[in-house]
Amino acid sequence: MAEADYVIGIDCSTTATKAVVWDREGRAVAEGRETFSLSSPRPDWGEQNAEDWWRSTKTALRRAASSVDTRRIGAIGITHQRESFVCLNEDDHPIRPAILWLDSRPREEVARFGSEEVHRITGKPPNPTPGFYKMMWLREHEPGVLERAAKVVDVHAYLVHGMTGFWRTSWATADPLGLVDMASFDWSDELLQTAGLSREQMCELYPPGEIIGELKEDVAREVGLPPGLPIVSGVGDGQSAGLGANITEPGRAYLNLGTAVVSGTYSENYSWGNEYRVLSGPIPKTYTLETLLAAGTYTVSWFVEKFAGVNAKELGLDLSTEQILEAAASQLSPGSDGLLAVPYWNNALTPYWDLSARGVMLGWTGTHGKAHAYRAILEGIAFEQRLMTGGAETGLEKPVEHVLALGGGSQSTLWCQIIADVMQRPVSVTQETESTCLGAGMLAAAAIGMHGSIKEAAEAMSGTGAHYEPDEARAAVYDRLYGVYKEIYPSLRPLFPKLTEALKPQTSGAEA
Amino acid sequence: MAEADYVIGIDCSTTATKAVVWDREGRAVAEGRETFSLSSPRPDWGEQNAEDWWRSTKTALRRAASSVDTRRIGAIGITHQRESFVCLNEDDHPIRPAILWLDSRPREEVARFGSEEVHRITGKPPNPTPGFYKMMWLREHEPGVLERAAKVVDVHAYLVHGMTGFWRTSWATADPLGLVDMASFDWSDELLQTAGLSREQMCELYPPGEIIGELKEDVAREVGLPPGLPIVSGVGDGQSAGLGANITEPGRAYLNLGTAVVSGTYSENYSWGNEYRVLSGPIPKTYTLETLLAAGTYTVSWFVEKFAGVNAKELGLDLSTEQILEAAASQLSPGSDGLLAVPYWNNALTPYWDLSARGVMLGWTGTHGKAHAYRAILEGIAFEQRLMTGGAETGLEKPVEHVLALGGGSQSTLWCQIIADVMQRPVSVTQETESTCLGAGMLAAAAIGMHGSIKEAAEAMSGTGAHYEPDEARAAVYDRLYGVYKEIYPSLRPLFPKLTEALKPQTSGAEA
Repeated sequence: MAEADYVIGIDCSTTATKAVVWDREGRAVAEGRETFSLSSPRPDWGEQNAEDWWRSTKTALRRAASSVDTRRIGAIGITHQRESFVCLNEDDHPIRPAILWLDSRPREEVARFGSEEVHRITGKPPNPTPGFYKMMWLREHEPGVLERAAKVVDVHAYLVHGMTGFWRTSWATADPLGLVDMASFDWSDELLQTAGLSREQMCELYPPGEIIGELKEDVAREVGLPPGLPIVSGVGDGQSAGLGANITEPGRAYLNLGTAVVSGTYSENYSWGNEYRVLSGPIPKTYTLETLLAAGTYTVSWFVEKFAGVNAKELGLDLSTEQILEAAASQLSPGSDGLLAVPYWNNALTPYWDLSARGVMLGWTGTHGKAHAYRAILEGIAFEQRLMTGGAETGLEKPVEHVLALGGGSQSTLWCQIIADVMQRPVSVTQETESTCLGAGMLAAAAIGMHGSIKEAAEAMSGTGAHYEPDEARAAVYDRLYGVYKEIYPSLRPLFPKLTEALKPQTSGAEA
Repeated sequence: MAEADYVIGIDCSTTATKAVVWDREGRAVAEGRETFSLSSPRPDWGEQNAEDWWRSTKTALRRAASSVDTRRIGAIGITHQRESFVCLNEDDHPIRPAILWLDSRPREEVARFGSEEVHRITGKPPNPTPGFYKMMWLREHEPGVLERAAKVVDVHAYLVHGMTGFWRTSWATADPLGLVDMASFDWSDELLQTAGLSREQMCELYPPGEIIGELKEDVAREVGLPPGLPIVSGVGDGQSAGLGANITEPGRAYLNLGTAVVSGTYSENYSWGNEYRVLSGPIPKTYTLETLLAAGTYTVSWFVEKFAGVNAKELGLDLSTEQILEAAASQLSPGSDGLLAVPYWNNALTPYWDLSARGVMLGWTGTHGKAHAYRAILEGIAFEQRLMTGGAETGLEKPVEHVLALGGGSQSTLWCQIIADVMQRPVSVTQETESTCLGAGMLAAAAIGMHGSIKEAAEAMSGTGAHYEPDEARAAVYDRLYGVYKEIYPSLRPLFPKLTEALKPQTSGAEA
């Protein structure tokens, strides 16, 4: 093992599994990928066949392994979609489809079982995301499923079992299930009891970044990797992206500008509040405080697709619609001539946790056009991030001084500059676009001593590219506009549940 | 004169003068038109050369007269843009350009001189529209202009003087100047004194619908009309449109779906409030209570121009963008899937009188597209009209039971049906699209006995086309959504002045 200078990071996300072979400097050497599907039997449901997680992982590993000298590979680390879980029978077969993080069916269970006490134990403000509420939903609507389950496992556990034969998982991948006591990093007996689950049904918990098994011979043969390869416990994909961005000390935050916008910081103390949700950090016994905006590039793409309608070809330009809007929006003044967008296109998470919230655009005049609307959306997400980061700071030892941007949105020069100006903090873009998968590689590298510690692995294997400093004049304009922005949602808050109510089909008789 | 069966209505608007020859049934027999220009030396200023009013009127008259047997014409009635005024020297020449209704320069004067007392006397809530505040602005910024003026006159007076040589006008055309006591229909000595004006500088006031002079021989020759033709005093264009729509009794309202949306009702009693502005009605000693939304079809056109970008030709369709949006929006459910638009693209007039107000769209989700936005704008204007009509009813003897729609927007089947459903009242569209000019013709016809009274003239010369009844099921949905709509602006009200303030260029030193 001494000569190993590669590690594999697996990222089993909601739509695909990716396996990347990383070298000791964090460069991708090879990559394999396999997609799988998601089903929505009802509008707010999201389910998956757990066997697809394992099948796609093997395919991705085989593809990644096929083009490298596999003797150089020292370990495999894992990250994955969080909160999703599956119930398995005695033969390790799913009893029903896995229920995913994005499934929002347990609204009623959140109202019934979500409490300050649950929040305090788990660090997660009551909302439909954690597995706990979906388990409560199963108890109510599919009695017998939880009782019959030999194991109830997160994605990490399911993959570790496939690779090693052990029912072991990381406390930093299991904790989003909402059953882990965040002060002790152990299953909460109180919550297991509420859910009617026993410790025997759950996996053994390990800290992240620890060797928890070895690659079984049959699997090794199937995917073309050396048998006995150490399997290293990981963290959920959000924290893993943070590790990939080298967030291993206070004062730094990652900002993942993806479909959702997720930002996280490093903390050594446990605290809980509505302004953030708390997750186990990638360094054992540390915490990641996360803020969440459900609709990030989702809203940008929505606008481009549904409204922009700029035909570049007609103009004889070899540019995408987004590039044209970006160029036009770049020429506008900060503040989009007074058009403000509150980006709750997919409801509000931190700090308001309002499932009835919807998007607002305020300040329309006849001078506004598409470029204004596009810029206002970018600015609105930046204002919202300022609000959310300010909230997260209430639980931090040290304010956020440096933002590390990653994800699709970080490729927008305009957006990164707006974020720097609005947040009044420097923004650096991570060099590696696959930060999430890199984080899994870092934990694997540290576990086998390729680097001295997780912190050293993160330092050595990460890097930054473009850098943006806040501009004083623009920051001043945004500061004044932020004073208006932050009052919009609180002013409108009582209207969103009323709007939801008003839109409900009314029934006159027996039907509910 | 006994054989006369035609009348001419003149409408001298902000951009053109139109002269229409009407028969006794209100059918247009001939028409002449001439445009003129408007200048904006500063963004919120609007000025005009008053001589253009007269020049264009003569051209329009000549063109209208050229194709009819002028011996059949019995009288000329006049209507025109309201609030606009010009200061003339001893030789009847303008001392400076006329200042128009849409000029919003006297914001400070509104704050200083607008009071409950001024509101009570004039029926007009303090805002930059009435001439009074612009006269106060002149006193402050162009001292000497008012003092040197031999006459300060409205458009009607200027045209009457051109046609007859007399300085006479109608109290129902002069009242928007904001100097007329609405209880007595005479100049208010108190307000004249405030403005530093004497009665000698003002015109003699006549009731609407009265012969106040005869066409001078030189003008008659120039325009090709019989000399001595009776000139009949008119009403401002808003009230004239209402007369053209046959609003001559309580319970009926006209709804002009133009660039601005103006609705007016008939009342026999004087009352005043922020919910409406009061004007002299076309029947002497009656009142028109008006509600005003500055951005009506303005917002619809803005959306079509700036955002819609539907290319019909590409789809092989011979339709306008607006027709495509109308068809798509017609297929959506009432309420545009929860997207609500507060149509203050050009600030708020009745009932809030908030110059800092701007448009709001609330309720965005990823399912919304262009057709939703288009429909939401139509629905938003309808919600706003429901709010405004409800406000006007506080000053009325009888609620509004029937809405007579006119103006460009009344050609939209979808919009008229939405208005009927939202307002829960039947909507009829006037047959004659030039209702404003027709109103002037009706007053002329009544004055020379072509019909027994103004009311009879309105009845005989008006007609309706399309008719829309409210649908119970849709009305119920809109009723629930209206409950949300009406709270949006009040919830956001404090934010608009803050937004205005935040957008102001900040100066660090000497410059203000």
